Amino acid sequence: MTKINENYLKLKSGYLFPEIGRRVKEYSASNPPRRIIRLGIGDVTLPLPPTIVKAMKDASDEMGTAEGFHGYGPEQGYSFLIQKIIENDYKSRGVELAEDEVFVSDGSKCDSGNIQEIFSLDTKIAVVDPVYPVYIDTNVMAGRSGDSGEDGRYKNFIYMSATSENDFQPAFPVEKPDLIYLCYPNNPTGTVITRDKLKAWVDYARKNGSIIIYDAAYESFIQDPSIPRSIFEIEGAKDVALEMRSFSKTAGFTGIRCAFMVIPKNLKGKSSNGDISINSLWSRRHTTKFNGVSYVTQKAAEACYSTSGKKEIQERISYYMNNAKLIKEGLKKAGFTVYGGENAPYIWLNTPDKMSSWDFFDKMLKTHQIVGTPGSGFGPAGEGYFRLSAFGKKEDVIEAIDRISQG
Amino acid sequence: MTKINENYLKLKSGYLFPEIGRRVKEYSASNPPRRIIRLGIGDVTLPLPPTIVKAMKDASDEMGTAEGFHGYGPEQGYSFLIQKIIENDYKSRGVELAEDEVFVSDGSKCDSGNIQEIFSLDTKIAVVDPVYPVYIDTNVMAGRSGDSGEDGRYKNFIYMSATSENDFQPAFPVEKPDLIYLCYPNNPTGTVITRDKLKAWVDYARKNGSIIIYDAAYESFIQDPSIPRSIFEIEGAKDVALEMRSFSKTAGFTGIRCAFMVIPKNLKGKSSNGDISINSLWSRRHTTKFNGVSYVTQKAAEACYSTSGKKEIQERISYYMNNAKLIKEGLKKAGFTVYGGENAPYIWLNTPDKMSSWDFFDKMLKTHQIVGTPGSGFGPAGEGYFRLSAFGKKEDVIEAIDRISQG
Repeated sequence: MTKINENYLKLKSGYLFPEIGRRVKEYSASNPPRRIIRLGIGDVTLPLPPTIVKAMKDASDEMGTAEGFHGYGPEQGYSFLIQKIIENDYKSRGVELAEDEVFVSDGSKCDSGNIQEIFSLDTKIAVVDPVYPVYIDTNVMAGRSGDSGEDGRYKNFIYMSATSENDFQPAFPVEKPDLIYLCYPNNPTGTVITRDKLKAWVDYARKNGSIIIYDAAYESFIQDPSIPRSIFEIEGAKDVALEMRSFSKTAGFTGIRCAFMVIPKNLKGKSSNGDISINSLWSRRHTTKFNGVSYVTQKAAEACYSTSGKKEIQERISYYMNNAKLIKEGLKKAGFTVYGGENAPYIWLNTPDKMSSWDFFDKMLKTHQIVGTPGSGFGPAGEGYFRLSAFGKKEDVIEAIDRISQG
Repeated sequence: MTKINENYLKLKSGYLFPEIGRRVKEYSASNPPRRIIRLGIGDVTLPLPPTIVKAMKDASDEMGTAEGFHGYGPEQGYSFLIQKIIENDYKSRGVELAEDEVFVSDGSKCDSGNIQEIFSLDTKIAVVDPVYPVYIDTNVMAGRSGDSGEDGRYKNFIYMSATSENDFQPAFPVEKPDLIYLCYPNNPTGTVITRDKLKAWVDYARKNGSIIIYDAAYESFIQDPSIPRSIFEIEGAKDVALEMRSFSKTAGFTGIRCAFMVIPKNLKGKSSNGDISINSLWSRRHTTKFNGVSYVTQKAAEACYSTSGKKEIQERISYYMNNAKLIKEGLKKAGFTVYGGENAPYIWLNTPDKMSSWDFFDKMLKTHQIVGTPGSGFGPAGEGYFRLSAFGKKEDVIEAIDRISQG
């Protein structure tokens, strides 16, 4: 019989959101006294902006004509979209990029899961704890971890704790990592990184010969102009970093699927044949295992950069950030210690009385009929924390805060 | 410096289609006497059917409303699409499937490249030669091959030659393979497999404990009712095979991106913890490294199964198969020895006078201003062959045959 990839057996079963779903379903069946308000998963709720809808319909019509039909496109993405990305997201912030440094994809989840494939299986990875589980799970599947320990951490990985004690800014690891996964604005803590601190990470990577995988999927929620939106705003970053961005949370593309990765040509890796361009390796991977994003979707993404598209997206971001403010202030008034939510759509809070994350989840569900996400689901350092998402409807957010305030 | 995945260095540079592009570009610059007709790459040319366009526009409108908005969907695909697939593509042919045996994806290229990830790195793979290069390249990247030899074949892989000598039906390998990649109707040879022969493959796999990765991306081009459309029409196949299908060539989705993989729950692999369900492994992979296909695209795929959608798709298939007939008969009259083209959109021919595939490519380009695909680009056993695709416009096909006939 054919042997399977046994690394999959190391994966801890019960991924976070299915377990949440199970508990909510079970509780729902018990006839709760009120409607359940879901502020758990980080999925957007506002409809697609009209400009985006129009672009999709126009592109669909185009595909129905002999002249406008588009078959296989370039796997890396159409030039019309890449040019808009470079001009609006990078050139406007002083970052120069060539067209072949941008790779359009069908999502940051895929990009962040696939990127590890082009590195050696014995690369040492460093992740922040708590963290988006995909960074970890995909490295486990590839075989870079040992088994998971009793503390829930996999052996061979470097975990960098981010808690209120260090202001959610993890210390530099003592053991030298090859790949460092950083996500700012951060999921799940909703915290951001200052320019100085990000500069220190770039310097650390340069000194140690590490590569930073920078997940900037939430950059458009940054309100404070002093916070860097791209790691490439930091001098020297092009030698040590690649960056992921997404249309999911900004333009509401969670169900449409479009993202991109920026890999500067300066970024190099080591091989027995000398230094190798990470950009060229990713290009080989992307063109061999992927076949490009739908033309219709890329036209929709292009429309995000039109004047009306930008305006409509900004309205949506303001709506969600107003939710974040309502949640943060409401919880503070109700006596909670709260983090994030100012430059990110997530609010991270200490569970009261050192309650465990899952106990607090159950309490929120059964007392207030509110679904959030237990911090421990993002890693052991998330124990004693809880995440609320600002992606809900404003009325739901107001009602949720009311319920919590009334105790 | 971070070490790269050195398996990438084993990959032969110069993928087939870029090299074709380079030669055509160079020749174009020399002011050819006539327009160049492209019958090389297997990309469709007819516009999307009106029913599909309407479904995409309706879904786009829906996404623009509060009630109709869809964020993250199930990674495996929406139930509305999976049910249609099961009913139309399988149940109608006597194959029973459960919903969770079907995984919707963004393309068979991705599926056929990603599937190897869930198997052990020391699985022995068997491929037909000539072959779709993605099966090979992705296994090289993962580290299952040795270096490539002078004959262009990678060490450690089992190659099964398919040439006119064996009627393009490769013999069963002597060395026992763990994973067997089969593609019928075949790309590139355009040949098909009979029910008896496919039964023999299933029996071979059962006897040897192998798994068949069956690529049926071209099944809808089958005209002969005696030819199996799915490997699951063969008794016992659910224990030893998984199957890939695509909307690309049938409904013109090469630029829209939708496909699916069927993995029966009976299919098992071996681990040190006992037998493991391949379906559950793929589910873990698919939900961790992928985030589902666009809702709009899945609604478009669903529309392929409507009465008008089916009719419009059938018209397109007939158009392409008429092209195939014109090419095959035209070439025969012109004295060529020709294969395929009766149940597949590809015509495979012997180059005249034992000319090499690339020499014949150059001759076709420079004498007739016609672009085809050199057989050797699909593997050493393709040397001395040439592929023409039926996906062009009828006028172009007629003109191409005229040019060739006039010598």
